[in-house]
Amino acid sequence: MRLSGSGGQIPLEPKADRDTVRRHNLSLVLRAVRDEGEVTRAGVSARVGLTRAAISSLVEQLLESGFLSESGKTFSGQAGRPGTVLKVARTGVAGIGVEINVDYVSVCVVDLAGTDRVRLVEHLDNRGAPPARVLGRAAGIAARALASAAEQDLQAVGAELALPGLISAGTVRQAPNLGWSRVAAEAPFADALAAHRPGLPPLPVRAENEANLAALAELWFGGLGDVRTFLYLTGEIGVGGALVLDGELLRGAHGFAGEIGHVVVDPEGPECRCGSRGCLEQYAGQSALLRSAGLDETNGAAGVAELERRARAGEERAVTALERAGLMLGRVVSGAVNLFDPDAVVLGGIYRPLVPWLSPTAGAELATRVVSGLWPEAGDRLRASSPAADAARGAAARVVQDVLSDPVAYAARVA
Amino acid sequence: MRLSGSGGQIPLEPKADRDTVRRHNLSLVLRAVRDEGEVTRAGVSARVGLTRAAISSLVEQLLESGFLSESGKTFSGQAGRPGTVLKVARTGVAGIGVEINVDYVSVCVVDLAGTDRVRLVEHLDNRGAPPARVLGRAAGIAARALASAAEQDLQAVGAELALPGLISAGTVRQAPNLGWSRVAAEAPFADALAAHRPGLPPLPVRAENEANLAALAELWFGGLGDVRTFLYLTGEIGVGGALVLDGELLRGAHGFAGEIGHVVVDPEGPECRCGSRGCLEQYAGQSALLRSAGLDETNGAAGVAELERRARAGEERAVTALERAGLMLGRVVSGAVNLFDPDAVVLGGIYRPLVPWLSPTAGAELATRVVSGLWPEAGDRLRASSPAADAARGAAARVVQDVLSDPVAYAARVA
Repeated sequence: MRLSGSGGQIPLEPKADRDTVRRHNLSLVLRAVRDEGEVTRAGVSARVGLTRAAISSLVEQLLESGFLSESGKTFSGQAGRPGTVLKVARTGVAGIGVEINVDYVSVCVVDLAGTDRVRLVEHLDNRGAPPARVLGRAAGIAARALASAAEQDLQAVGAELALPGLISAGTVRQAPNLGWSRVAAEAPFADALAAHRPGLPPLPVRAENEANLAALAELWFGGLGDVRTFLYLTGEIGVGGALVLDGELLRGAHGFAGEIGHVVVDPEGPECRCGSRGCLEQYAGQSALLRSAGLDETNGAAGVAELERRARAGEERAVTALERAGLMLGRVVSGAVNLFDPDAVVLGGIYRPLVPWLSPTAGAELATRVVSGLWPEAGDRLRASSPAADAARGAAARVVQDVLSDPVAYAARVA
Repeated sequence: MRLSGSGGQIPLEPKADRDTVRRHNLSLVLRAVRDEGEVTRAGVSARVGLTRAAISSLVEQLLESGFLSESGKTFSGQAGRPGTVLKVARTGVAGIGVEINVDYVSVCVVDLAGTDRVRLVEHLDNRGAPPARVLGRAAGIAARALASAAEQDLQAVGAELALPGLISAGTVRQAPNLGWSRVAAEAPFADALAAHRPGLPPLPVRAENEANLAALAELWFGGLGDVRTFLYLTGEIGVGGALVLDGELLRGAHGFAGEIGHVVVDPEGPECRCGSRGCLEQYAGQSALLRSAGLDETNGAAGVAELERRARAGEERAVTALERAGLMLGRVVSGAVNLFDPDAVVLGGIYRPLVPWLSPTAGAELATRVVSGLWPEAGDRLRASSPAADAARGAAARVVQDVLSDPVAYAARVA
């Protein structure tokens, strides 16, 4: 797992502002330990390129502030002298991610290593309720997860919301499947969460598109290997998408890039909640998929599990519905591949367990329609998301990433 | 006009390797003068952030090497003392761009300022001929343009080829409309050009996708104003595309991004040369457009001019053909906008004069289908390319950009 933090990888020599330099180098050392998992001071020194003395001083401060822990003894390969092993702390600073989707809320608390330490999922229908009520309920779930985290001596220093819509400056500009339009999300959630945690410091809250966060989670915690440029699709009630270019989210000019669910499949097709017609979502979204398989489309996760069970049993209607959705996915994805030239396409959300039935038709479309000739073996490049990587974990990991980028800013929270 | 060069904008203080620092700063100064057009030494100093003394020494070297010229006298606003005005040299170093397309070759020589100084266009059919013959002919045209440039005391220091296909490491992986597959382009062109210029030093040659270069030309020489993230479509026999993200080409994982001409419009549509069916090119490429307007599709530029004439005269069949192509363009472009979230969409190549008839239907599709709600006024965001910006000029300007990034490397060529 490698969460590349913001900020350069080059250590700064004490010259300009000593405080700035030290903060930068503390971040470098902390990220080096996180990337290595377990490492000696000598190992950090070799990786970061600062002297042993400088590293020792930086490590000392990180140990005192509770960002690192040391344990056991080992022999550093280089000098033959024993050194203790450093790890990032398993207690103290944490991040919380809160995915609010159409028919569930999923909350995840991760530690400094990005490990999923608390997970709380509630299945409920968020479509009928006013946004303030949905945000309030999600804050209640988050507060319970934070209580569980506190039992493990983990304190979140920030919360990130994952929402199925277009987010700009903390406001949900549009989330058609939630029925939200121009809803401020961050402040109401922060207030509701604070109300659940009397006497505790309020948490800063940030909102982000859920597909973007799921894609980052896949990059950081999934099985992509060397792949750093990919297209991510997440099947939910809607179909979300994200583009990752060389390890960075491609946001576009206004932060709205990746809306693959509203690429048109049939211009005369069924009306979509976005105001257009025949969008991919109308053919490959959860409702369309369940309906065409003859299942109750309001059944949510249970319906998807039933669809998977029937497909596994070879039931024709289920298999046909998935093949048809795969065909439509393949058409739209081949266009996206022609435009964006990714190394892989990852199918997440409800698609993950359904990939075995979606991929034959989708892969055939890709093999025919991708112009570069790079995708004849489309089966390899079209893959299911990792079960360990979802939007809530990506959101929580982004909070931790802020800490890794400047631990000093968070030192008071842990000490 | 602003050609942002590679390399940072921060002047380096003499510390590490003095030679490296000076080369970097020479580039900074040269680019500052190019960006300003006309500027005093004091103006350069203010812009670049180095002392007057340092600037004077750097300017002296650039004058001696022939990259800058000075002329006239002015009063620097700041100190009230007279200073001479610096400009980039109008003679000496130049770049040549060679666009090889299906039914024409267009060659452009630009000077250090990026100004188009020589232009030679030959309309010919490149489809029938073997690649070596096409490259040889293009080299002959380039040689004639270089002879014209020499009359103006301009010497190209490199050539860039613009080709309608997928280019990777100097090889045309696929150019369906030329009928090329896995054709090495750079070395054969360089050899053919050298044969036309006995006694002259051979020119380094680089190949790039023509839509990418047209998009860069639009960025550098067009009328985009503050827009730095846009989608570029160029209508030719094929339909090329490029994505520019914050002023940089988005190349994707293998350099093949932007192939919007092969996004599917109708999965059961006519066969395309790429091997797929119903690609945008089959509805909005030059041949399809001329055919559906009842014109001879083999007529090339003359056919497009005739189509424009008929549309202007209000001839129904011409107008209907353009409206239909606009509709298809609008559908595909709305998907691309949903994926990529650009600030503008630029229509170049044969579309440029046809935009008045393409944009009503295309704009209506965009207004309906773009999910962000940012495109209700799609007419503003869908625009014709600038006549001053084309692939050949973009290619030539890339050569000049190399010079601007490290003038010292080219000093011997001018001196």
